[in-house]
Amino acid sequence: MATNTLSERIYNFSAGPAVLPLSVLQQAQAELLCLPGAGASILEISHRSPAFGEILASAESTLREILQIPANYRVLFLQGGSRLQFSMVPMNLLRDSGKTADYIVTGSWGSKAVDEAVKEGDVNLAWNGKSDNFNRLPTDDEVNLSDDSAYVYFTSNETIQGVQYRHEPATGGAPLICDASSDFLCRPLPVDQYGLIYACAQKNAGPAGVTVVIVREDLLEHSGDQLPGYLSYKEHDANGSMYNTPPTFGIYLVDLIAKWIRDEIGGLDKMAERNATKSGLLYDVIDQSEGFFTGHAETANRSWMNVTFTLPTPELEKKFVAQTKANGLDGLKGHRSVGGIRASIYNAQTPDAIHALRDFMVDFQKNN
Amino acid sequence: MATNTLSERIYNFSAGPAVLPLSVLQQAQAELLCLPGAGASILEISHRSPAFGEILASAESTLREILQIPANYRVLFLQGGSRLQFSMVPMNLLRDSGKTADYIVTGSWGSKAVDEAVKEGDVNLAWNGKSDNFNRLPTDDEVNLSDDSAYVYFTSNETIQGVQYRHEPATGGAPLICDASSDFLCRPLPVDQYGLIYACAQKNAGPAGVTVVIVREDLLEHSGDQLPGYLSYKEHDANGSMYNTPPTFGIYLVDLIAKWIRDEIGGLDKMAERNATKSGLLYDVIDQSEGFFTGHAETANRSWMNVTFTLPTPELEKKFVAQTKANGLDGLKGHRSVGGIRASIYNAQTPDAIHALRDFMVDFQKNN
Repeated sequence: MATNTLSERIYNFSAGPAVLPLSVLQQAQAELLCLPGAGASILEISHRSPAFGEILASAESTLREILQIPANYRVLFLQGGSRLQFSMVPMNLLRDSGKTADYIVTGSWGSKAVDEAVKEGDVNLAWNGKSDNFNRLPTDDEVNLSDDSAYVYFTSNETIQGVQYRHEPATGGAPLICDASSDFLCRPLPVDQYGLIYACAQKNAGPAGVTVVIVREDLLEHSGDQLPGYLSYKEHDANGSMYNTPPTFGIYLVDLIAKWIRDEIGGLDKMAERNATKSGLLYDVIDQSEGFFTGHAETANRSWMNVTFTLPTPELEKKFVAQTKANGLDGLKGHRSVGGIRASIYNAQTPDAIHALRDFMVDFQKNN
Repeated sequence: MATNTLSERIYNFSAGPAVLPLSVLQQAQAELLCLPGAGASILEISHRSPAFGEILASAESTLREILQIPANYRVLFLQGGSRLQFSMVPMNLLRDSGKTADYIVTGSWGSKAVDEAVKEGDVNLAWNGKSDNFNRLPTDDEVNLSDDSAYVYFTSNETIQGVQYRHEPATGGAPLICDASSDFLCRPLPVDQYGLIYACAQKNAGPAGVTVVIVREDLLEHSGDQLPGYLSYKEHDANGSMYNTPPTFGIYLVDLIAKWIRDEIGGLDKMAERNATKSGLLYDVIDQSEGFFTGHAETANRSWMNVTFTLPTPELEKKFVAQTKANGLDGLKGHRSVGGIRASIYNAQTPDAIHALRDFMVDFQKNN
């Protein structure tokens, strides 16, 4: 029997894996010994059982519904996270194409994607925000695309720097590829403007260990027959995400979370409003702090998901982190590569948690 | 709050994902809203948090303890299942070696491993049981190893055919590579006789979505720098299984299951005894059925994990499957590629379930 440990839950600002909707956790808990009608746990049933077949179909159809995914796009559920996608994208879409892949790099994850792409073919760094310390997005005019581009790749939200695209960069007609790992499902997306969108689930869409890939069907033909089987989008598509045993529990949670967005939040328009409001509460504190808190990203490119800022001294930042922790607000230390403070406030982060952090920030400034 | 759905649980003979220890499920359920001391669910905490660090360390140390893994072996927790290992093994250990990889093929999974290996280098089919319908293992004399072997690969248990190695094949000094996905932790293993052992967890060791790799440290040096990052054992090792966000919940369950083997079963010697006894109960019914039930595998090579057999006619097999299902015994239909009946009775399968199936088989024969 499960114990009620609700009262022990703190405000969790982890950058990922991150907070999940409480109602989803409660349903998963209630069903963990026995999925209704299945006679066994979701952790124990065959991926080829009717019960799991329904879950897989539901996860796909609910994502299709809330994102309005066009019929000529496939939805795949894979393993390996973004790191495997860093390789799968160029292995499937660049190798043997005779073309060049354009990468727009707006933060740490985009840089790592380039490191893998160059192993597979010609890569053009169409824009690199490193010289600006990754604090902004480029305008379309600043991006230098190749004449014969295999695809244009970008990272819609950079978790470490807190810089987010909420529009689609221009591609000159080449397929647009998006690492949406950290802001997937934060807003409606014009899916038809993309060639491929992928998201490891552990920020907005599920637990660690499942990656959602949405790919335009004509691009599947680029997957070469000599690719390692697990690395071929075509192979996964031909097998309906059952090329091997899929991460069944992760897909079950993706389904519950997609339904939470649809049924409890009211869809992606409402989700976007909620995210704008939530992040706005924290950015307002930063902007009204008269320089006590300094936001990392330029105002126009600020992320709804990761609010990154610094304090006047490293000592104050240490004190800030220690005091938040003592007050039941955890996970606020900035990524070890850039320092400072990072509040990760993905879809499931509650307004209560945001209010608690906002109040803490105001008090902290007063007292320091 | 979780509901008590214990009474709805049936006898689950699924080939994988498969039955898990009930006490493990109950602990996972009790802790699902809040991992003790962490303030959040195991599904929500950062992989870099101290709480997850303890779980990862415990999963490794408990596996080391029960398997007596020597210090010069590394333990990695990856994603992608056996299918990804089919490629990772030759990409890391065969590519650019100038050598030939020897594959001993005793069933469907070994065949699929060969399909991936030939994409990466020279492969020698050292033995192929296909002409015997994969009903037995070869003797060492029947296996034709290469003169300059990169490694010798085998599948310790073939789930579809129900043929199992409970000894190590001779390698002539080459590293021995084992796909132990479906019988990992079923018995003590002389790990020092292996170069690399891997197991996707969803049979004996955890849920779908986590793969355990045990590799001798000197073999890590073979991983080339141009490998896709996620496919390099060296890269995963250098990052302590944190090259990317690992499947945190899956690793948590591997830890609980390893502790269940150590603390509730009493270790791998006891586990092996229990598995011999459990499978023996079913093989005895087959052997005493005077030909009503026909075992697929030769007696000496029968699997402890997957008991495969046929009935006199396909109609009787259909009736058998339908009646077991009606009696709360599920998952007994043989794999679609070979037909017949398959009872998967991994580590966590209870003696109660075995007794129920044995009694059913005896009655079914009487009545038909």
